[in-house]
Amino acid sequence: MANVRIDSEKIDKLAQLAVYTGLGLQPGQDLILTAPVEALPLVKRIAVHAYKAGAGLVTPLFSDGELTLARYKYANNASFDKAPDWLYNGIGKAFDNNAARMAIVGDDPMLLANQDSDKIGRANKANSIAYKPARERITRFNINWNIIAWPGVAWAKRMFPELSGIEAQSKLADAIFDASRVNTTDPVEEWKKHNEVLRKKCKWLNELDFASLHFNGPGTDLIVGLADGHEWMGGASIAQNGITCNPNIPSEEVFTTPHALNVNGSVCSTKPLSHQGALIDEIQVRFENGKITSAKASKGEEVLLKILDSDEGARRLGEVALVPNSSPISQSGLLFYNTLFDENAACHIALGQCYSKCFKGEENLSEKEISKRGGNSSMIHIDWMIGSRHIDIDGINSDGSRVAVFRKGEWA
Amino acid sequence: MANVRIDSEKIDKLAQLAVYTGLGLQPGQDLILTAPVEALPLVKRIAVHAYKAGAGLVTPLFSDGELTLARYKYANNASFDKAPDWLYNGIGKAFDNNAARMAIVGDDPMLLANQDSDKIGRANKANSIAYKPARERITRFNINWNIIAWPGVAWAKRMFPELSGIEAQSKLADAIFDASRVNTTDPVEEWKKHNEVLRKKCKWLNELDFASLHFNGPGTDLIVGLADGHEWMGGASIAQNGITCNPNIPSEEVFTTPHALNVNGSVCSTKPLSHQGALIDEIQVRFENGKITSAKASKGEEVLLKILDSDEGARRLGEVALVPNSSPISQSGLLFYNTLFDENAACHIALGQCYSKCFKGEENLSEKEISKRGGNSSMIHIDWMIGSRHIDIDGINSDGSRVAVFRKGEWA
Repeated sequence: MANVRIDSEKIDKLAQLAVYTGLGLQPGQDLILTAPVEALPLVKRIAVHAYKAGAGLVTPLFSDGELTLARYKYANNASFDKAPDWLYNGIGKAFDNNAARMAIVGDDPMLLANQDSDKIGRANKANSIAYKPARERITRFNINWNIIAWPGVAWAKRMFPELSGIEAQSKLADAIFDASRVNTTDPVEEWKKHNEVLRKKCKWLNELDFASLHFNGPGTDLIVGLADGHEWMGGASIAQNGITCNPNIPSEEVFTTPHALNVNGSVCSTKPLSHQGALIDEIQVRFENGKITSAKASKGEEVLLKILDSDEGARRLGEVALVPNSSPISQSGLLFYNTLFDENAACHIALGQCYSKCFKGEENLSEKEISKRGGNSSMIHIDWMIGSRHIDIDGINSDGSRVAVFRKGEWA
Repeated sequence: MANVRIDSEKIDKLAQLAVYTGLGLQPGQDLILTAPVEALPLVKRIAVHAYKAGAGLVTPLFSDGELTLARYKYANNASFDKAPDWLYNGIGKAFDNNAARMAIVGDDPMLLANQDSDKIGRANKANSIAYKPARERITRFNINWNIIAWPGVAWAKRMFPELSGIEAQSKLADAIFDASRVNTTDPVEEWKKHNEVLRKKCKWLNELDFASLHFNGPGTDLIVGLADGHEWMGGASIAQNGITCNPNIPSEEVFTTPHALNVNGSVCSTKPLSHQGALIDEIQVRFENGKITSAKASKGEEVLLKILDSDEGARRLGEVALVPNSSPISQSGLLFYNTLFDENAACHIALGQCYSKCFKGEENLSEKEISKRGGNSSMIHIDWMIGSRHIDIDGINSDGSRVAVFRKGEWA
């Protein structure tokens, strides 16, 4: 952490953007924030802007890669079936009292690359189960939340292995500031414009109201049925507490809920997926009636198969998202090994839990109603990239007629 | 945090001592750990030793002085009546599931010195109330717990303002290692010997079973009645979960529960008290029938008066402790501005909550029974020093006869 040379003005701009545009933090709202210890300089500025915005109490929960590794190296076997449920239950209670949630990502994406995949799988599963009270309040969008990134040194070294730690971190910082539109005079204003562009795309898709999408490209021939009454969303969004927030910074996607029982065909990933420390590459799966019936990967296949066995819903889709190949993150040519960025470089799908907000009409659909409309339920939600400049997408209406949505990776 | 130059072998020895002697951590036990972010190098070694000892899950909760200050500088007024009750309730639940507790102190003791005392008082009160579920499990000694120290730079600069940050930190590190008996070949073995010395003093006092203690010295003429069936304790102690731990590292004191209704006379402090960022010096109080009826201080009087108004029990004693003036911490001549150290340099008393473990006989006294025996109840527990090389202490038996306990600050 020594000698960090990141423009402090830009750190402050990112913090301000996260508090105002990302969270839309309201006077009196508490804020629960998770971050790597390394991100302390950013956390400090977030605390300042949050309190200036009238925050009640800012509670940061810090993590550290070496502390995580200490567990994998030294803990006895039984440790890997444990999770801090007391903490996650508490976070769920705080959300019920309208606390906002911010997550800063920045850890080494390959932290656990050399650890036992059985331990990783069990630890992730235990954590997913315990995290449910917090997660379901986020997926139901009860409260305003936001994810941003800090250029962690180990992460930066993964992306730029040829550079020194300081140089790599500085380069990643620039990439984050670029992608997050912080490298502009007025990031908050830039995001207003950007949100308007995404809103228009959603409006168009919602008016067309396709029954399904047909993805076509090398190794991919997939028909993704859309949930009954699905709604396309993207950029700024209103949480159930009435607060408008931008959950992801950056974000280039529009997304909706697929039909969990109505996905058929084959699809391959177009970018590696970095999942909780393991890298999964060249995924190829086959869907039948919504369920993955076969799956392989050239790298990390064991981790992938464990993910698919997390629960019944883990083999079905919870999200489909459209991102043009001309998106700034795609054009940067960088692979971030981090979903927050890489999902904004290409169209993608997500295994697991759907966003219950992605339905038209009434605000609070019951779990039963969501399921009836085709919304998937799971304790996981894992995005992976299936878009590229070779992908065509057709929208299919209920009468079988087709509309060009994407051609060669771009909006048609 | 750049360029920390603290002997990594000693950091590791302190971590090992804290896990084995401090906590007596048992296989399968979870550990909840609070620490300043700055203490990360020590936290990392604690995690390693905890997992090696068979810990289930180590959950660190980090704090940072600048984050605390951001609240005082920028938060709106209503913020200061808030506390993270969701977090403290969760910690209480974790304790009910036998999680152990470690606290690493190391923050700037004068962090809040220039902040509004009304805000400090309200924030402390809100925090004390919310922290009750966690605190009462510690004061009832339900689980094994331990406090150790990290040489924070700002703390070190308060103690050694004439030195550079690095030099001051290095000097404080040495003082901590000395006081904690880590500057020895085998700290765990040294603590076994030290615990035996303290055990013998307790045995002597418990056999004599005084009705009260009479403190006599410059500005002090105080008779502290002892609770009915009080027990003297010190050093290693057995928690209600059956685990032997050393709650404080360092620790030179033997202590017991005074009678909340039976303290009379005047007493003055002999060292400054650093309380949650404010310094309180030259305290002079008068007790009548156990209750402080007048109080003043040359510095921080406002903070002191707020403390006394925390609740009904805040004006009564919950602890009396004996420490000879020849204790290594006293002989170091250093004022640490931190109770963990300074209370081990002199005899002291504590306002507020008593330790319910400090009673002979049955393990689980009810609150009512504790109160009947004279044990005090409060949401605060604040130690301050009344001992010096000028202090004499007599033990008074129920028939009025006297035994010399201390003469000129030393065991008689």
